Formats: sequence, structure tokens, C-alpha cells
Amino acid sequence: MSRASLSGKKSKSIDNTGFSPNSDAAGRRLINRDGTVSLRKKGIPFYERISIYHSLLRMPRLYFILTVFGIYTSLNIIFATIYFSLGPDSLEGTLLADSLSERYLQAFFFSSQTLTTVGYGHISPVGFVTNVVASIESFIGIMSFALVTGMFYARFSRPEAYIRFSDHFLVAPYREGKALMFRLATTKNNHLTDVEAEVTAAIHVTEHGKATTKFYQLALEFSKINSLGVSWTVVHPLDENSPFSDFTQQDFTAGRLELMITIRAFDDHFSNTVQQRTSYIQQEMVYGARFLPMYEQSKDGKYLHALLDKLNDTETVTWQH
Amino acid sequence: MSRASLSGKKSKSIDNTGFSPNSDAAGRRLINRDGTVSLRKKGIPFYERISIYHSLLRMPRLYFILTVFGIYTSLNIIFATIYFSLGPDSLEGTLLADSLSERYLQAFFFSSQTLTTVGYGHISPVGFVTNVVASIESFIGIMSFALVTGMFYARFSRPEAYIRFSDHFLVAPYREGKALMFRLATTKNNHLTDVEAEVTAAIHVTEHGKATTKFYQLALEFSKINSLGVSWTVVHPLDENSPFSDFTQQDFTAGRLELMITIRAFDDHFSNTVQQRTSYIQQEMVYGARFLPMYEQSKDGKYLHALLDKLNDTETVTWQH
Amino acid sequence: MSRASLSGKKSKSIDNTGFSPNSDAAGRRLINRDGTVSLRKKGIPFYERISIYHSLLRMPRLYFILTVFGIYTSLNIIFATIYFSLGPDSLEGTLLADSLSERYLQAFFFSSQTLTTVGYGHISPVGFVTNVVASIESFIGIMSFALVTGMFYARFSRPEAYIRFSDHFLVAPYREGKALMFRLATTKNNHLTDVEAEVTAAIHVTEHGKATTKFYQLALEFSKINSLGVSWTVVHPLDENSPFSDFTQQDFTAGRLELMITIRAFDDHFSNTVQQRTSYIQQEMVYGARFLPMYEQSKDGKYLHALLDKLNDTETVTWQH
Amino acid sequence: MSRASLSGKKSKSIDNTGFSPNSDAAGRRLINRDGTVSLRKKGIPFYERISIYHSLLRMPRLYFILTVFGIYTSLNIIFATIYFSLGPDSLEGTLLADSLSERYLQAFFFSSQTLTTVGYGHISPVGFVTNVVASIESFIGIMSFALVTGMFYARFSRPEAYIRFSDHFLVAPYREGKALMFRLATTKNNHLTDVEAEVTAAIHVTEHGKATTKFYQLALEFSKINSLGVSWTVVHPLDENSPFSDFTQQDFTAGRLELMITIRAFDDHFSNTVQQRTSYIQQEMVYGARFLPMYEQSKDGKYLHALLDKLNDTETVTWQH
Repeated sequence: MSRASLSGKKSKSIDNTGFSPNSDAAGRRLINRDGTVSLRKKGIPFYERISIYHSLLRMPRLYFILTVFGIYTSLNIIFATIYFSLGPDSLEGTLLADSLSERYLQAFFFSSQTLTTVGYGHISPVGFVTNVVASIESFIGIMSFALVTGMFYARFSRPEAYIRFSDHFLVAPYREGKALMFRLATTKNNHLTDVEAEVTAAIHVTEHGKATTKFYQLALEFSKINSLGVSWTVVHPLDENSPFSDFTQQDFTAGRLELMITIRAFDDHFSNTVQQRTSYIQQEMVYGARFLPMYEQSKDGKYLHALLDKLNDTETVTWQH
Repeated sequence: MSRASLSGKKSKSIDNTGFSPNSDAAGRRLINRDGTVSLRKKGIPFYERISIYHSLLRMPRLYFILTVFGIYTSLNIIFATIYFSLGPDSLEGTLLADSLSERYLQAFFFSSQTLTTVGYGHISPVGFVTNVVASIESFIGIMSFALVTGMFYARFSRPEAYIRFSDHFLVAPYREGKALMFRLATTKNNHLTDVEAEVTAAIHVTEHGKATTKFYQLALEFSKINSLGVSWTVVHPLDENSPFSDFTQQDFTAGRLELMITIRAFDDHFSNTVQQRTSYIQQEMVYGARFLPMYEQSKDGKYLHALLDKLNDTETVTWQH
Repeated sequence: MSRASLSGKKSKSIDNTGFSPNSDAAGRRLINRDGTVSLRKKGIPFYERISIYHSLLRMPRLYFILTVFGIYTSLNIIFATIYFSLGPDSLEGTLLADSLSERYLQAFFFSSQTLTTVGYGHISPVGFVTNVVASIESFIGIMSFALVTGMFYARFSRPEAYIRFSDHFLVAPYREGKALMFRLATTKNNHLTDVEAEVTAAIHVTEHGKATTKFYQLALEFSKINSLGVSWTVVHPLDENSPFSDFTQQDFTAGRLELMITIRAFDDHFSNTVQQRTSYIQQEMVYGARFLPMYEQSKDGKYLHALLDKLNDTETVTWQH
Repeated sequence: MSRASLSGKKSKSIDNTGFSPNSDAAGRRLINRDGTVSLRKKGIPFYERISIYHSLLRMPRLYFILTVFGIYTSLNIIFATIYFSLGPDSLEGTLLADSLSERYLQAFFFSSQTLTTVGYGHISPVGFVTNVVASIESFIGIMSFALVTGMFYARFSRPEAYIRFSDHFLVAPYREGKALMFRLATTKNNHLTDVEAEVTAAIHVTEHGKATTKFYQLALEFSKINSLGVSWTVVHPLDENSPFSDFTQQDFTAGRLELMITIRAFDDHFSNTVQQRTSYIQQEMVYGARFLPMYEQSKDGKYLHALLDKLNDTETVTWQH
């Protein structure tokens, strides 16, 4: 069977995916497994391409902490230098000797006590200018810690779906025929309701001698479930409504099928809408397998146990036909 | 009448509830009265199953306060130990004697004054290392209090529906026939608008000799009301469109009927969408009763009084047929 | 014409308003002009009827500030009493004399300096117990100020529509017939888009000798506009689809018509959904008037001026028929 | 062709844009390029027209910082004046001399140390009244910094689409005919999904000898895309369904066509709905051009590069007919 049989089907290819039909001749993955897009922006200055807010929220936790601590230290160095440059009489205190380096350290510690508003007072500002600078520094301290702590909390409380997807998608038996399937579960103690799945397939074909990418929104057995308990197996039946109804394993491989997946849900307890995206490429397909159950009753019968380590457990099937 | 009569009805059973048709042979409740699911996750390490954010938001208030206070105390112990280990000259102060225990306590109190940024200054850091540690501690204090106070406020301001459901659901007279009914009211000084109800029934039947659970989305008299004033009686008419149209009391009992309920609404004053879930099991059914009114006019006629203690008030009815 | 002509119309009365058809014999207004409902809850203890969060957000600003200041003072009194009761040696400081009242004041001021974490240090805690209490107080201070300042900011930033409604609704000429109309405008520097109106009419009729209230969702000329510029005149045509198509002024009066209005919109600049509700009763009807324009071009032609003081400007019309 | 040919088309003009059909005789732009409306409100007092929250969020960053710093300074001046007026014995401290100006400065610095709760303690309050004032000031400090820092963070974290629109809209070849087109891209490291476009056209015509403005919601090739990768060219085909199907360049010019555009999307990473608006006027039309591609493969084929500097790159086309 040739892939040219894609045309003339009931299901129409779509063009509104935001991807270009001819942008992917090189065989890149369109969407990464973590849901990000393999896209880099160029042509305008760096600072116009960066939303500091987005950057601070997306960077790894360790980078974030180092960045924030770096800002804290930098501000202290700046203000310490100012206090230091105001001369030895600008700060009063009993702790450190009079050497230049110790004077600078004293200025540094006074700065940090001012910036955090801890203000022990064992070092204190003397004179008009020093007092004005300290007054401004404590103001700046409050304002910048507001941003930093706000970001810190926003990172911590960011609505997340915590969905884990099976490593592979399957071509599995389904009713009298076959279906594309993948499985997902929430791994954490969150509970998702009104869970919606949207699966877009990208398939690379040659039309009129030109390589092009076609996109299909795949019809699902269920595109929405009320509640995500143990797990959800998302199913696209390979029936007469599917653009891939008579595809063989070779057709999928040759067409470098990619499934682009968006899951959207409502966090039951906290009234947030959460979204997670991922994709599967053809190399992640297992042709001829079915998922095994991933739950069991607790011994007392009171609980259902979701066995998250079995998310990827499948058994091979042999086709009857 | 046998429960086999479920099949062949107009209403089709649904499969997208997120519950498995064969997961509940043991007769567990699918959803608890407080809306949670009787589900436990296993098979992956504890820390991968826990969203600290969700845990902190869902734990009882007392636990939360104890947890936070425990963290505060732990941080103080850690930093007190550091200050203590830096020797007797690391802190300057006049309050406590020189015994080891009192030195430790002084270090502890200095730590707490630094962590909270209260910084009285009657104890103050001496020397380079102590000052650096104090500088870091006040930074850590600000950052961790940001998380803790953010969580505290998030718990306090969490959008909640404050809906109370009647203890039982009824099979009550309705027009010429019968209907399943339950009643709900908001108990607090919040006002809900655009209130939607979604009721899914689970019924346990034996098909082809195998115990299975069937799910039905129940048609409601009204699935949405503009505004939740005194109360709302949610009604599923047991008419020809119901999967239970000719069920007797015994059929409901034998089928271990469970009603799974989701209420979603818009908080009028604060522009939040709120959601609350609950369920009724067959033991919570009263067959042959109707709800009594739960409001009265105030004496001056200016107010309507919602009588929340009458939420469960019913009267027994005897069926004419 | 008798009001009995309500029945048999095309438009069907609705029952899902959340109001009871027989709860309003006394002629109360169902919804107040500020959108609240004339409803009081009874029958359960006070503390179960109150959401502290909702109460703090809805109380008038002055009450809020007084409440917060009252809590602050109370906490200080409690802790001052503890410090005072720990004896004259529990606090060290130079400011006040040794009289009992001055000792108490010193304890009070020390408490306030601890609660706010200002911690000057001119009064400082002495001894184990006092230090522990101070350590706890500064912790409580941070936690309770988190709630209070969170509420304060939430009140300040609460999404609001800032819609002003015309004082009266009109029965005005419309195309070849008549229409019910009212007008609204945003008064502040916010910009609403995707503005939706929902108008429910309540009319009191006597059916089979029994006073009852019927509810109708009124069809509007436009139920949604893209953008709320100068103002929006919401129009319900009194045509053959209206339940009031052949009502006379007397019919409206006798039926004690009440219009219950919900406006929902999207705040253009801040991505909030906002909602505002109001109602008109029959006494607020002007029969035979039309709204006058409430805008003018600025002299340089660059701006359109919304003349908000003309929101209520109408002119009387005499019906041709 | 005369513009009178607008009437009698399939596409019906709409009236629910919130703009008045006769408000724009002077030829103003209805919506500015930054999405704001050229509207000023009059007729009610200034303080009733201003939402302080909206004003603080919308003002330029420098103004905001100056405003906040101004408030901080003003509060310090007010409290400094109070402390100063309480006499030379109200504050204890060692820093400044006894001249009146230095006493005032000391009061000012004490105030700032109290307001920010830095509280060094080298200046400290003496006596009942001063202590009460300081206690109130630290309370006011915490409350007002809560507002100010909340605003500061809200400005920083405000959901934004960061969409850049092409400078011009084109009349370009499209299939067998022509289409109106403009192009947009996100410039920052945010990723938008479920992006919707809504385009309303305003055209000024003369009907029955009277200048009037007609509005049309334009049908788009796609009104929604799944994901906004490199860019999106929004297309309104000038086919038989368009109100402008047989418009010439002169017709667009004479009718002073204005396109009013709303883009709404879901921020993939942070679960916010974001909205951005703009408009094009007839002077920003290029008749007979098409957009050039604005992406390229990275050399290693792993990334797609969005070339944001080519957003406006077009090439001229000559019409075949």
C-alpha cells in the first residue's frame, strides 16, 4: 500500500497546527517529549526576545536559587562600595578592626542587614548621606525581595498536571480492528477532572514529487473523561474514519508518523486549569502490543492501588488476520 | 424485574468516567462523601508521588501550623548549631551566662531573630564567618517565609464552594411519576451563580455471568441554575429516558447504585470558578420521601431566611400506584 | 388585557433561576440594585455560616482597616500581658520608669516591635522564657501579617467591572414597535471586551387563584458585544417572541415586573473575567422615553468623549399608536 | 465600482461591536495600534473615573517607581514631622547634633527605619506618645508595602501575549483570488497554544446621503490554530462570502477600511489566558504583496529558527488579472 492513499479519505488534513507543511524536511521532531517546541528565535536583540518573568519561572531550580543569591550578593557589593566610599566615619560599630578590608566587610554586612531589614543595629549609619543611602537601600530591599519571593512562590505553586505518559504508543487490537493507543497517569497526589485529550498526527508524504507534511486531528474513542483515577488509555481507532485506516507498520515508519498530544484538565482541589503536552515519534511505536492493567485492590478492599511502575507494561499480541 | 433490563434502553451507558468497569467487584465506594477518590498510588518512590504544594494545601490546618512551626524550629536549630560551633566569640550579647547550654540558647535566639528579620541587636554577630552566616540566614529566612506565608494565604483564600449536601438522596414523587432527588445549599456568606450539576450513576450488574459496573450520565430536570439562593433540589426524573425507569427499590439495592456528583459554579463576588464533588451510595437512599421547604419570610418581609438546619427535612410519601 | 395572556405564548417560562415561584408573595425585591440577594441564612451556628475570607473581602474599607488594627492591638495586648507577667527582669531597656503601668507599656511596645519585626532593640528580651515568647511572637507576626496583607491586597486588586447602570429602564420605541431598554457604561479607566448580558424577568401572576412568580429569560437585540466603548444600551424587543409582547403599562405595574441582570466581561488589560449584577423593579420603569446620546467628539477630533453624567438622560416620546 | 455595492451581499453587517455607526465622521482611528481605544471619559469627578489599581498597573515603569518612591518619601515626611513636633526628647540617639534641621533629619531617618521595619535601634523612640506613633507607623509600613510590592509583582507577572504584528496588512494572491492578510509572531520565550483571532472590519460609507460606519466580522481561513510556532499569517479570503469581494484598491481607500484585531491564546507554560488587540487602518495597507518566509533550519537540523526581523518582509506581486 502506498502512502498516496492518504488522499481521498474521509478525514481531511488540517492546516491550522501552527506548523508549516514544508518546514520539516530534515526530519526533526516537531514537539519534544517534554512538550516544548524545537524552535529558536533570532533576528531581534536578546533583550527583546526574553521575558524575564518566563525565564525565571522556567529555569531549573538550582539556577534560580543561584541567580537570586547572585542578585542579593551583587546588591550588597554595590551598596557596600557606596558605604565604603563614604569614608570610615560613615558607619558606627564595634565589631571589626580598621583595616581597609575589614572596613569593607563591615560595610558589606551592614548592607546585608539593611537589604533584608534585619537591622541588628550593632552597625549603624552615621551622617546625612549614609542615612539617606541606607534609607534607599532598605526600600530597594523590600521591593526587590517582593519580586524574588513572588517568583519563588510562583514557581512553587505553578499549576501543573504531573502527568506521566507511557514511553511508547501502541498499535493494539481494538474491537474488530486496531487502534493507536498510549497511556497516561498522574503520578502525584493531585486529582484531575474533566480531562481532555487532543491528538494531532503529522505524517510526511511526497506529493507531486515534493516532500510535504500533512496534519490530521485524530478522532478518539473518548476525547474527555470525567475524572482521571488510575490511568487513561487514549485510543484512536484505526477504522474507516481514520486517515491511517489501511496503514501497515511500514507505512507508519516510512511516513515518520509523529503524534502531538495536548492534555488539558481541571485540578479538582485547587480550581486551576492545567495543560501538559508531549509527542511520540515513529521510533516510539510498538506495533502489536496491548497495555496490561496497572491497578489492584488493596487487601482490605477499601482502596484501589494505582501501580505506577506498570505504566509501560505491555504484552505482545499476534494479529488474527 | 431483573436488572438485565438495563440493556436495550434509550440511555446508553458511558465509558469515559475514568473508572474501570471491572475494578470494583469488592463493593467499595467509588467516590467518598467529601469528593475524594479511594485511590492510592504505588510503585514509584514516595518523593515522586508527592506534590509538596498539594500536600501543604490539603493537610488539616493544625498539621499545617505544626509543620510550619517545625520547619521554623528546625532551621533555628541548624543555624544555632552553626553559630555555637563557631565558638564563644562569634556572638556578642549581654543576656545569658557562659555555660554551654546558655551559649547554645543565645545562639538559638539570635538565629530566630535573624530568620524573622526582627534583629533586636542585643545579640549581634562578631567576625567574618558569623556575619556571613547571619547574612545567609536572613536571606534564607525571607525566602522560606515567602513560601510558608504564601501557602498560608493560599489555604486561607482557596476558592471553595461551601456547599452542603443533604445526607440522603430520595426517590420522590415527581409530576406523574418518580424522580431521584438530592438537595444542596451554600452554608456561608458566599453567593454562587451559574451553578452546574453533573450526576453520574454507577450500577453494578452481572452480564454474561461476569460482574461489571455500568456508568450513566443522568439527565437532570435542570443541569444549570442562574443563581443559588436558598437551596437547589437536583432532580433526575425516572422517566422513559432514564436508565432506571422501571427500577424498584430492590433493583437499586441489588445494583448498589452510586451517584457521583460534581457541582461547578462561579463565585459571584470574587470571580472564581469553584467546584465541589460528592457521592451517594445506595445505603443513603430514602425511597418514598419528599423534601420540605427550607425557607421562610422574615417578619418585616424584607428578607428571605434560608433555614439551613432543615436541609435534611423530608416527609414520607406513600405512592398512589 | 389580562395578565393571563402570559400563558400560551411562544416564550416559555423558566424554572432554573434559583428563585422559588412562591417565595415572594410579600412583594420583596428579588435582587438588590447592588446585585446582592435579600437572603439571610439561619439554623446553623454563626461560625458555620461565615467564610472569614468572604467577610473580610466584602466589608467596607473602614471596617476592614479597623478590624485589622484591632487584631494588631489585641495581639499586642496578649503578648504584653505575657511579658509583663514574666516579671520586671524579663525585658531590658532604658526608656520607661518602673511603675507598673510603665512596665506594662514597655511590654506593649516591645510586643509591637516584635510583631512587626521592626525590632529596634532599645527594649530587648532577657532570659529563656521571654526569648522563647519573643521568638514565637515574631513567627506569629509574620504569619498573621501574611494573611492580613494578603487580604488587603486582594481587596485592592479584586477584579471589578466598574459598571454603572442607568437609574431607570425604559419602554422605548424600537423599529416598528417597542422595546425594554436600559443603558450601562464603565466609569473607570478599565476596558471591557466580550461583554455579555443576561436578563431574566420575574413577573407576579395569579394562576388558578394562587399568586405565583414566573421567570423568563429575555431575548436581547445583542446579548454580547465585542468591546464596551462609550456605553451599551441593552434592548429586549417587545415583539412576538417576547412574553410581554402585548403588555400595557398597567400590566407591567400590576405584575410587578422585575428585571434581573448579569453582565459578564473580560478585562482587556488584565485578563480577568469580571461579573456584575443588578436589577430593576417596576417602580424604576419609565414608559415612553428614549436615551439621548452620551458622547461627543473632542475638538481636535482625536478622541471620543464619553459623557458619563448623561447616562440617565432621556427624552419623552409619544407613541404614534 | 461604487461602495454602495456593500449592501445586498451575503455577509451581513453587525452592530454589536460597541462602536457607534455615526460616532466617527471625523475619521479618527477606532482602535490604536497598541489596542487601546481613543476614548476619554468626562462628566463625573476625577476620583470616580479612576481605578487606582488599573492606573498603577498601566503606567510606565519609571512613573510607577517614582510614584512609589514618592509615597515612601511622603510618608516619611509626615511621620518625621510628627516625631519632630513631639520635641527633642521624643527620640534617643547619638548620631546627629541638636540643630533643628539635624533633629528633623534624625526624625526622618528614624521614620524610614520604622516604615521599612529595618529598625537598627541606634535611634529609638522615647516616651508614650512617640512609642505609640512608632507602633502605628510600623503597622502602616507593613500594610502599605504590601500594596506596593503586590502591585510591583503584579506588573512584573502580568499575563502578556508578547505578540508582534506586521507593520502592514496586505492584499495578496490567495488560491485563485485575493485575500487580506497580516502576520504575527511571539517575540519572547513564551509559547502560545489554542490561539484565536477575531477580525472586525469597519468601513465608512454614505447611505441615503448620510455618513455611516458599517462593521463586519471577517471570515478567516483559520480562526484558531493549535500552537503558535514561528508565526501565523491570518487570512481573510476576498471571496464571495466577503463583504469586500469586488473591492478595488480605491474602494478600500475611499471607505477608510479599519481592521480591528483581537488575539486570544493560552500560555502553554503558565496556564494563563492572554489577549492582545491591535488595528490596521487603510494607510497601513499594501495592495499587491505577499509575505516572505521567516524561518530557516539550523545548520545541524535540530532547531527551526524563527527570523523575527523578517516579520515585515514582503515581495511585490503583479496581478494576473
